[in-house]
Amino acid sequence: MCIKMGQKVKLETTSKHLKVDSKIKPSCSIVGARGYTGLELSRLLLSHPLALLTTCFATTEFKLSNYLLENEAEKVHCLPESQVMNSLTDFVFLATPAEVSLRLAPQILRAGKHVIDLSGAFRLKNCDYSKWYGFEHTEADALKAAVYGLAPWSKPVSLSQPVLVANPGCYATAISMALAPLLKRDLIETSHLVIDAKSGASGAGKKAAENLLFTEVEGECLPYKVGKHQHLPEIIEALEMFSGKVLDPHFSTHLLPTRRGITAGVYAQSKVTDLKQIERAYAEEYFSYPLVKFGSTANCPQLLSLKKVVGTARTHITYELVGNKLYIFSLIDNLVKGAAGQAIENFNRLIDAPVETGLMMQKGTL
Amino acid sequence: MCIKMGQKVKLETTSKHLKVDSKIKPSCSIVGARGYTGLELSRLLLSHPLALLTTCFATTEFKLSNYLLENEAEKVHCLPESQVMNSLTDFVFLATPAEVSLRLAPQILRAGKHVIDLSGAFRLKNCDYSKWYGFEHTEADALKAAVYGLAPWSKPVSLSQPVLVANPGCYATAISMALAPLLKRDLIETSHLVIDAKSGASGAGKKAAENLLFTEVEGECLPYKVGKHQHLPEIIEALEMFSGKVLDPHFSTHLLPTRRGITAGVYAQSKVTDLKQIERAYAEEYFSYPLVKFGSTANCPQLLSLKKVVGTARTHITYELVGNKLYIFSLIDNLVKGAAGQAIENFNRLIDAPVETGLMMQKGTL
Amino acid sequence: MCIKMGQKVKLETTSKHLKVDSKIKPSCSIVGARGYTGLELSRLLLSHPLALLTTCFATTEFKLSNYLLENEAEKVHCLPESQVMNSLTDFVFLATPAEVSLRLAPQILRAGKHVIDLSGAFRLKNCDYSKWYGFEHTEADALKAAVYGLAPWSKPVSLSQPVLVANPGCYATAISMALAPLLKRDLIETSHLVIDAKSGASGAGKKAAENLLFTEVEGECLPYKVGKHQHLPEIIEALEMFSGKVLDPHFSTHLLPTRRGITAGVYAQSKVTDLKQIERAYAEEYFSYPLVKFGSTANCPQLLSLKKVVGTARTHITYELVGNKLYIFSLIDNLVKGAAGQAIENFNRLIDAPVETGLMMQKGTL
Amino acid sequence: MCIKMGQKVKLETTSKHLKVDSKIKPSCSIVGARGYTGLELSRLLLSHPLALLTTCFATTEFKLSNYLLENEAEKVHCLPESQVMNSLTDFVFLATPAEVSLRLAPQILRAGKHVIDLSGAFRLKNCDYSKWYGFEHTEADALKAAVYGLAPWSKPVSLSQPVLVANPGCYATAISMALAPLLKRDLIETSHLVIDAKSGASGAGKKAAENLLFTEVEGECLPYKVGKHQHLPEIIEALEMFSGKVLDPHFSTHLLPTRRGITAGVYAQSKVTDLKQIERAYAEEYFSYPLVKFGSTANCPQLLSLKKVVGTARTHITYELVGNKLYIFSLIDNLVKGAAGQAIENFNRLIDAPVETGLMMQKGTL
Repeated sequence: MCIKMGQKVKLETTSKHLKVDSKIKPSCSIVGARGYTGLELSRLLLSHPLALLTTCFATTEFKLSNYLLENEAEKVHCLPESQVMNSLTDFVFLATPAEVSLRLAPQILRAGKHVIDLSGAFRLKNCDYSKWYGFEHTEADALKAAVYGLAPWSKPVSLSQPVLVANPGCYATAISMALAPLLKRDLIETSHLVIDAKSGASGAGKKAAENLLFTEVEGECLPYKVGKHQHLPEIIEALEMFSGKVLDPHFSTHLLPTRRGITAGVYAQSKVTDLKQIERAYAEEYFSYPLVKFGSTANCPQLLSLKKVVGTARTHITYELVGNKLYIFSLIDNLVKGAAGQAIENFNRLIDAPVETGLMMQKGTL
Repeated sequence: MCIKMGQKVKLETTSKHLKVDSKIKPSCSIVGARGYTGLELSRLLLSHPLALLTTCFATTEFKLSNYLLENEAEKVHCLPESQVMNSLTDFVFLATPAEVSLRLAPQILRAGKHVIDLSGAFRLKNCDYSKWYGFEHTEADALKAAVYGLAPWSKPVSLSQPVLVANPGCYATAISMALAPLLKRDLIETSHLVIDAKSGASGAGKKAAENLLFTEVEGECLPYKVGKHQHLPEIIEALEMFSGKVLDPHFSTHLLPTRRGITAGVYAQSKVTDLKQIERAYAEEYFSYPLVKFGSTANCPQLLSLKKVVGTARTHITYELVGNKLYIFSLIDNLVKGAAGQAIENFNRLIDAPVETGLMMQKGTL
Repeated sequence: MCIKMGQKVKLETTSKHLKVDSKIKPSCSIVGARGYTGLELSRLLLSHPLALLTTCFATTEFKLSNYLLENEAEKVHCLPESQVMNSLTDFVFLATPAEVSLRLAPQILRAGKHVIDLSGAFRLKNCDYSKWYGFEHTEADALKAAVYGLAPWSKPVSLSQPVLVANPGCYATAISMALAPLLKRDLIETSHLVIDAKSGASGAGKKAAENLLFTEVEGECLPYKVGKHQHLPEIIEALEMFSGKVLDPHFSTHLLPTRRGITAGVYAQSKVTDLKQIERAYAEEYFSYPLVKFGSTANCPQLLSLKKVVGTARTHITYELVGNKLYIFSLIDNLVKGAAGQAIENFNRLIDAPVETGLMMQKGTL
Repeated sequence: MCIKMGQKVKLETTSKHLKVDSKIKPSCSIVGARGYTGLELSRLLLSHPLALLTTCFATTEFKLSNYLLENEAEKVHCLPESQVMNSLTDFVFLATPAEVSLRLAPQILRAGKHVIDLSGAFRLKNCDYSKWYGFEHTEADALKAAVYGLAPWSKPVSLSQPVLVANPGCYATAISMALAPLLKRDLIETSHLVIDAKSGASGAGKKAAENLLFTEVEGECLPYKVGKHQHLPEIIEALEMFSGKVLDPHFSTHLLPTRRGITAGVYAQSKVTDLKQIERAYAEEYFSYPLVKFGSTANCPQLLSLKKVVGTARTHITYELVGNKLYIFSLIDNLVKGAAGQAIENFNRLIDAPVETGLMMQKGTL
């Protein structure tokens, strides 16, 4: 591993451009590269100024350049997933099902490499994996060592030893980003909270399943896993960690007939009646974090649009107060801030680069 | 008017087929026939065994047979909206903006004809029209006389004099149908109720507006009128009327990238912990009403599908209880139970026909 | 079998309503009932006045009433596909893959029952099954005996012995309906014909396949099987049979991001320069057939709309002539005229009922 | 104007990065910035290393930063369209209706500035504007001087005097890019050519129009302007200019239920029977042009996907030969290569920068 404590990548940053000495770029690989998250991650790593994506692993025949048509994709090695341990890189990104991550992550750590795991395998410290994920968690040590990586809320960690980052779930990200500032400042009631979240179909992954066929999903806004979604315990643990408050919310999730994006309606009883106090909480918390935009629904209707957040690494938060009823809408791209972009943020923080490095891409207007 | 008290249409009904003496079918007309609601209503009236749709009125050049390609559409007279008062029918259905209904309905009543108004002009008894609809309500008498017509909750009225029925709003319908049975039996808390509703784009009408263009709506699930939707006071008034309870819920509405259908998530604190008590409330209330289907989300996942309710006149209600957290999902077709089909139910009740007459149509499987 | 030659169902038809003696309704079953075509067929048979749908067969656990929420669906027996030969009905509709039909149809015929096969297994008389369908055709006798059933073009057959009807393919239907009248009258060149067809995603069936996921299909209009689609030889054989002309067209097919509907652009060199001659051909051919609507694109733009044909059993044909360049657009619902509705037409013709029996359903306006 | 002949912007290019002296960046403005094309152009200019977007003009109240949420957008002046002549920049991009461009372009030229016009006002040299565009062309001199700018086919022009570039139409671009190499080498018949093109709804612009509402467009693949589309004469003129051949094709256009992207099926009689000869034509022609990808449909199925070209400035061309029947599919993003990206190419060529400058952006994976 080329990057150690006290030997960080030297960043000569200007406002937007990083001059990089390519010789010291850490090598990176993606396991599960053929899925939607894996592909988005490969796209981000390929254009990242401080990362060198050398290898993609997939369970089936796979050529990255058939998916990413940009020329850079042709240089990446594509190997079967069985070769992971034989072809380790400095950082290994696991875009694999939780059961696969559970098995791979400890092995990779033991081999001295860093793991950023995009599955749920190492996110829950106190909850019952068999209840929420359907498997017994057999890796207590790795679970204990794992760092829940939600920028800017999680504390940075050093690279003095191999690190396992548990990249947050997409719904949990959207919701924690919206609620943590308010809970931390005790601005809302912790009881009677309701979260109604909706996700584009890419959030359900690329596995061939009848209920995800176009003909099935189109025309619907289908609730699923009502009261049983595995992101519920994650939201509760994360918000307790970041705010000290314990929640027990209603939480429903829907599949939208769109490709990308999460929009979560968060409905709370406010302890304050002036929207400015709500706004101030976000301003204070996200002052120095470049990947959040926020404002009242009245002033910033554009922040309610999925198309304006999709393709970016940002979180868009809007709010409205009617009496003491607080309405919050939190929007992210499930594949970027909700997965691959957040993984890049975690990578950036590990190598001590600005959190937004490689994530300020522009997107199309629609 | 051919139908008076004590002189009802003679219905020789068998289970599904009605033998009708066409000589005594009441004549019907639709004002605002070119909109989505007007067209759906024309479709339903054309195949209704006890109605004779004679005339459609529209503000612009309009030929019904260009929209409904079935042969029956060719016999309907299509006239400019300015001709309404010159071509009155026994029943006049107003599928017009609220301001237009406000002006037309009293005139039609004075001319001795019945009005079923699909706009919001006569729905709110106690609320401030200037706040919620943006106009002063100038027709206090008609408003007072108007009957809010939500089957099976509203009481039937006689036709001894010209009747004005205020057909409920689409969101209000979905939500009242789901909540009235529970509130009436005091099974849920009236405080801390949250409603997160989503509607297909036809709910926004056919008016050319930039924010309703395909390119704008596609890819979104856009919250709108947050805390300000005019169906909020309607829901409150309706549920107070049907259950005696007074609510003050969170209420948010979203525009879905689908053509038709409303799905409303209703989140409440249950006073009971056994789902069977919830189920029994629906069973008792809707026992003899053929246009509701309900069940738990576990047993009846098909009732969560918009495509399975769209095109029908039904309401689909499902529920789940996690601790004391009650999740309810109420689905309707915004153009049928939420508008035109409900208008037919009101018509049926006025002529003393079974409420489902003309509404048991089958629909496609997707 | 209750219906024999000279012992037809007695139809006392009025314009739209059929009085039926339910005692002599032939029994019907559907094999492959869980697919999109099977479900649509079950819907049509359930409301057919002269058919009694008794049984549905599926390969996996299946309950029709979970898919068709109308009450009639609850009475249909649902059995595993392995039980077909033990539970035969007068008519057996095969909504199965071609390989399955190939195996089942001859067995059912030998058992003395009629088969309407919706697969391609018995459509091609002269073409190479291994080339177009990927299997050797092992049932030469059944193939020879099979009747290609495209109403109104195919000749009626008697029921004096068990009949095997090969229900046409969806693309072939749309295209044959549009071209046969013109070719038969020698109004267009047979060379240089180009067909560019587009189908909704339900045309690809319900099998879980990655390329049919919502996230994949949405945003695309994907050409597939370019120059290799198995409907090409079917179109050629059908049009030779109905018009005597031999074609060798360009034929491309696309997957649309819609659920239902086929729209085929047919581009030909006209031998006539007056659009009226084209129009007359359609008028003469379809004069007495109630399930076609046609007109010039200028006069009948509504016939270009998929939503106006979807849900109906009709074919909509429009045409435009620019110099000698003829543009034809032919639209059907792939699940109705393109599959299940056509099967009902074939059933109707076999029992000597009017071809449109059970098919004049109204549909929603959008 | 800061850039003159012999005084070009100094480009110290490395493979992908341009070091730019911002002092000599030409100033740019967009008229009609609020439309889909205008917004996409503003996005591209904001990230262009050699352009300085100073001003946006719109007919209605408009703030660019409400549409492009990236920070750079806040620095752009937004003015009413009436102010164009008072606030001229070195280059003025007209993303306006043809009638508006017709009026503005000559004035801007007379004021000594360069115009890149994205409308059709100056594209047709020999055709009848009143027939195809519905207005008389009153600016013969400007029309004569205008340069049709299709990279890489059009010849570069010098900036020794004010230049008017007519940016090609979106359909014309997709089709000319696919056909010019083959026609130029006489590889296909010029007769009996058929083009069936389909465009995403953003191609129809942002004007509020009933036929472009979500509820109307969804579920359709609607042919429009059959045989009458104004890009037909443009295609004919362009291909005559680039290949010397005169065509008279069938040309149909459809509105897809997608936001972005054009896919054109081009069906021709090949004069050669070896696909390699077709392939060689593209290879020779586009060898040194980085914004085309091509291959056979068998080898490069990914090039048939709209999602893989949308958001890029590329043209994707695939081909298949069955006997002498050639199938070509040409795909572009209607807003990039079909409009704003092509405008940037024209700008790049005018300032003597590599044609792809500012256009090698990566896009999301879906």
